[in-house]
Amino acid sequence: MSRTAYRTHHAIEVTEALIGSTVTLAGWVDRRRDHGGVAFIDLRDSTGLVQVVINDEEIARPLRSEFVVQVVGDVRERPEGNENVHLATGKIEVVVRELTVLAKSDALPFQVSTALENESENKLPGEDVRLKYRYLDLRRPQMQSNLKLRSDMTRAARHALEDMDFTEVETPTFIKSTPEGARDFVVPVRMVPGSWYALPQSPQLLKQLLMVGGVERYYQLARCYRDEDFRADRQPEFTQLDIEMSYVSQEDVIGMAEQVIAAIWKTRGYEVTLPLPRISWQDAMDKYGSDKPDLRFGNPLVELTEYFKDTPFRVFKAPYVGAIVFKGGASTPRRQFDAWQEWAKQRGAKGLAYVQFTADGELKGPVAKNLSDDERNGLKAAVGAEDGDAVFFAAGSRESSQLLLGAARVELARRAGLLHPDEFAFTWVVDFPLFKRTDDPDDDDVAVGHSKWTSMHHPFTMPSADWIDTFDKDPEHAMSDSYDIVCNGEELGGGSVRIHRDDIQDRVLNVLGIGPEEAQEKFGFLLEAFKYGAPPHAGIALGWDRTVSILAGADSIRDVIAFPKAGGGRDPLTGAPAPISDAQRAETGVDYDPDEDKD
Amino acid sequence: MSRTAYRTHHAIEVTEALIGSTVTLAGWVDRRRDHGGVAFIDLRDSTGLVQVVINDEEIARPLRSEFVVQVVGDVRERPEGNENVHLATGKIEVVVRELTVLAKSDALPFQVSTALENESENKLPGEDVRLKYRYLDLRRPQMQSNLKLRSDMTRAARHALEDMDFTEVETPTFIKSTPEGARDFVVPVRMVPGSWYALPQSPQLLKQLLMVGGVERYYQLARCYRDEDFRADRQPEFTQLDIEMSYVSQEDVIGMAEQVIAAIWKTRGYEVTLPLPRISWQDAMDKYGSDKPDLRFGNPLVELTEYFKDTPFRVFKAPYVGAIVFKGGASTPRRQFDAWQEWAKQRGAKGLAYVQFTADGELKGPVAKNLSDDERNGLKAAVGAEDGDAVFFAAGSRESSQLLLGAARVELARRAGLLHPDEFAFTWVVDFPLFKRTDDPDDDDVAVGHSKWTSMHHPFTMPSADWIDTFDKDPEHAMSDSYDIVCNGEELGGGSVRIHRDDIQDRVLNVLGIGPEEAQEKFGFLLEAFKYGAPPHAGIALGWDRTVSILAGADSIRDVIAFPKAGGGRDPLTGAPAPISDAQRAETGVDYDPDEDKD
Repeated sequence: MSRTAYRTHHAIEVTEALIGSTVTLAGWVDRRRDHGGVAFIDLRDSTGLVQVVINDEEIARPLRSEFVVQVVGDVRERPEGNENVHLATGKIEVVVRELTVLAKSDALPFQVSTALENESENKLPGEDVRLKYRYLDLRRPQMQSNLKLRSDMTRAARHALEDMDFTEVETPTFIKSTPEGARDFVVPVRMVPGSWYALPQSPQLLKQLLMVGGVERYYQLARCYRDEDFRADRQPEFTQLDIEMSYVSQEDVIGMAEQVIAAIWKTRGYEVTLPLPRISWQDAMDKYGSDKPDLRFGNPLVELTEYFKDTPFRVFKAPYVGAIVFKGGASTPRRQFDAWQEWAKQRGAKGLAYVQFTADGELKGPVAKNLSDDERNGLKAAVGAEDGDAVFFAAGSRESSQLLLGAARVELARRAGLLHPDEFAFTWVVDFPLFKRTDDPDDDDVAVGHSKWTSMHHPFTMPSADWIDTFDKDPEHAMSDSYDIVCNGEELGGGSVRIHRDDIQDRVLNVLGIGPEEAQEKFGFLLEAFKYGAPPHAGIALGWDRTVSILAGADSIRDVIAFPKAGGGRDPLTGAPAPISDAQRAETGVDYDPDEDKD
Repeated sequence: MSRTAYRTHHAIEVTEALIGSTVTLAGWVDRRRDHGGVAFIDLRDSTGLVQVVINDEEIARPLRSEFVVQVVGDVRERPEGNENVHLATGKIEVVVRELTVLAKSDALPFQVSTALENESENKLPGEDVRLKYRYLDLRRPQMQSNLKLRSDMTRAARHALEDMDFTEVETPTFIKSTPEGARDFVVPVRMVPGSWYALPQSPQLLKQLLMVGGVERYYQLARCYRDEDFRADRQPEFTQLDIEMSYVSQEDVIGMAEQVIAAIWKTRGYEVTLPLPRISWQDAMDKYGSDKPDLRFGNPLVELTEYFKDTPFRVFKAPYVGAIVFKGGASTPRRQFDAWQEWAKQRGAKGLAYVQFTADGELKGPVAKNLSDDERNGLKAAVGAEDGDAVFFAAGSRESSQLLLGAARVELARRAGLLHPDEFAFTWVVDFPLFKRTDDPDDDDVAVGHSKWTSMHHPFTMPSADWIDTFDKDPEHAMSDSYDIVCNGEELGGGSVRIHRDDIQDRVLNVLGIGPEEAQEKFGFLLEAFKYGAPPHAGIALGWDRTVSILAGADSIRDVIAFPKAGGGRDPLTGAPAPISDAQRAETGVDYDPDEDKD
């Protein structure tokens, strides 16, 4: 498919097989070198580079970086010693007969030449400049490769789902506001002054309605919108691979999703071994201090609550005491341990207690002197440390302590260079609680409802079979049929079996403190739909930006999005968001006054 | 892929081959008949129907229409004489051993049984009711089939594009307002109070930036948003198959698009003969009085301007006189001709002059007496009519007269039953003018710019090669490299070669009356991008809702959209759009006062 009006071949196709023939190429001037009155141009197109030789100084003179040119030339072998083994086209060059400048380029705000890319990325400007000139940034091979990877992954996921008989259905983005844990973006509707559409935080309710509507296997690469405060790696709009199935159990969804994940990873040659491992939410918290544990490395948390139950150390008289081994950390200088204290404080902890087992078997560190002799003597064995290791402790509430140790575990691995981006450790996290407390300090979502309980996943999650009758009597312990898929400590996605009966949905809403009237107003249409024979259904959604960025090994999801927003939702390229004109504002109807209308 | 936790087979799989085996099925109770203490249930799932026999009255008693049930039963041959030849599963039935009601159904607001579907659609309620209970409406086989068709077409288009090396890229929906001929929907941005995103009317500028960014072949099934007054078949959000290519000519894009169209139509067994025919815009107007001619039938317009150049009939002393033959229309009763006058007046014309050639060769009708003898004698030959035909005339400005005759042509064909929905006549319309007058009464778009010229397609359309140097000196006659693809009188889509040089873009904007300052503010980023080496590029977009509806033979695009809006942008299902709370409004920042902020 290379032949178009402007070219006979792409760069990468111009190999030894074409020596002696005439080709027409088109692309950017990637780099130019002059040598003895002859200009050597690296011509770049979407496939790579090819060397173009211009013997006529007159023709070569005006050419500068990123000019768009079309060349007609003869393919010949490069002179001996001039081959470039790093290039697919490194054995040939194209001697120009005709050259047409299709478009000129001003001096560039930053260099995009592949040569620089290969040397180092240090010459990249700051992200705001990259985003302002995104069309230049996208020309860099790394970004080209990221966009290509995203497209390939999308294709692989689609093909896998097509093979499993899924129907792609597009759901609307102009919907009614629904409660899903974040703020809605809203759109004023000129045709109904004073009224607004909301943009979906996910197609959750719509896909459930599709199940009620008889679409047994639905998928969509869905754009979602959440008006959240900006954090490092969030975007106001994002994409999720959204999937829902009727007449299925958790096992069916997991089996399906594993096929999709294997197909995605295969696009870059990785064979994912199925079935993927699973861990319960409780185990994940106990062992790894995270509901999205990074399993590329070991070093689990060690619980010492029992061990320290009679401790004289006041700090360790706590509902939970745990530890994590800092392998080889005994000889760490004091100032680095001080830095760890800072690190812990930035995470909201008071500090990070530690001891050191010196190479000669001595126990040191601030905590050591507070322990009883028995505790000191048995500690090394209890935490599984060796001489030369250090150990970090956390004590306090179970969850916050585990989260601190879990974060320390990952940070230790990061500093030890164990987080290999091209190694992928998947796990399902299963057996989640149905509810969590609204006062959970680690919860960054807006609570849904007005009680002390909010949904761990969302209000449409089915209690597990054992809890169907009793979840509202004991919300603290009730479990749900939900599951997250985690890779390398990142949540790729998650899902659940959904409630398909209005009586169960009513009871869940009741626990959440959402009364009948409010429920009716907010999602009465879903409760109504459940009255007309809703099949059992379950689903999952994969955060697509995140999933792509993990396989791409990208530092940020912004590197796998063609036109991402910068901090604060700004687009340095177009200047969005921007004020609107008074006329435009009047048209939106946001200033509509219903009383005025009565006059 | 049928086996899940709830079933071993889908309905349609239960054929003679399974006689004697036990199956587990799940689905809706489509219909129930009772006969001699035995209940016969048509069980419906996404694949079809299967007959389930329940011998136990106790079990059968509660079952009503649209209950969701799971049955375990034995497959047996139906008793002789009870076969149903219309059903894939018509030779067998499943005798129930166990039945589980998975969900009950209240009495239905309207029937969705397939049986009714097969008899007639007359029992369908009005569209507002269908949309309010869309999840029930979607259960009907016709809607299931439409959703499936849409998914199949999307898949076929994607696969065709993948085979041609296209990269799927997602472009943002939070963008800056750009001028494309309709009102933007806008979204207030909480993070930047007083600022707004616009939702894209199309990804036009973004895909052009992708070309500048080195993505040589882009496609996306893109959601687009236009805040237009509601008409019969418009939606505030719609989908287009959006395609752009670098280093290509019009021919390359047309060739690519024809592959996509052929692949789409093939999903339902139609072999589209390529290449598709082409017609110039001028010929389409002259022959068919339309820029989207329906070529399923002939009967072209006949121009009579020259013929009537010396006419004594004042009405025909006009810049243009044309006619269309009403085959066999001579014996049409007077009151029907009067109705045609009304029809014409509703289209903004003064009326529709006509003559009749009676079976015995006489010339009748109101116009006849106004003509000269020569005109009367030669008329039949001049318009290509025969005895027994009638002829409609239009006289006045060329364009409005042709549009009236073109509409009459289609209306005549409709009444004659010539518009077969399963016959598809494609044509490319090419050789469009670059500009059109802003005072064009037939133009329903908002003019872009402030001059008497506006773009025929959009401001980014390349003048054709002959006009590059002179288009701004003679905008009236300047031609563009643009093309529409038309099927059965509907525009499936269109595209153009784009401007890729800032000097040409500047001159086009100048003709449109958009000064440098306004241009800079509105799409300075595009003009800026063109300074850094933009490759030549061209593209096309297909209106996906329309394209699907044509192949589906649907009356409305709403029948090929899962959750469409009703008139006025209302969603009878969820009640959107709706007012927002004061707190939500405060958060949007729409009432932000920059002066207040200074205090």
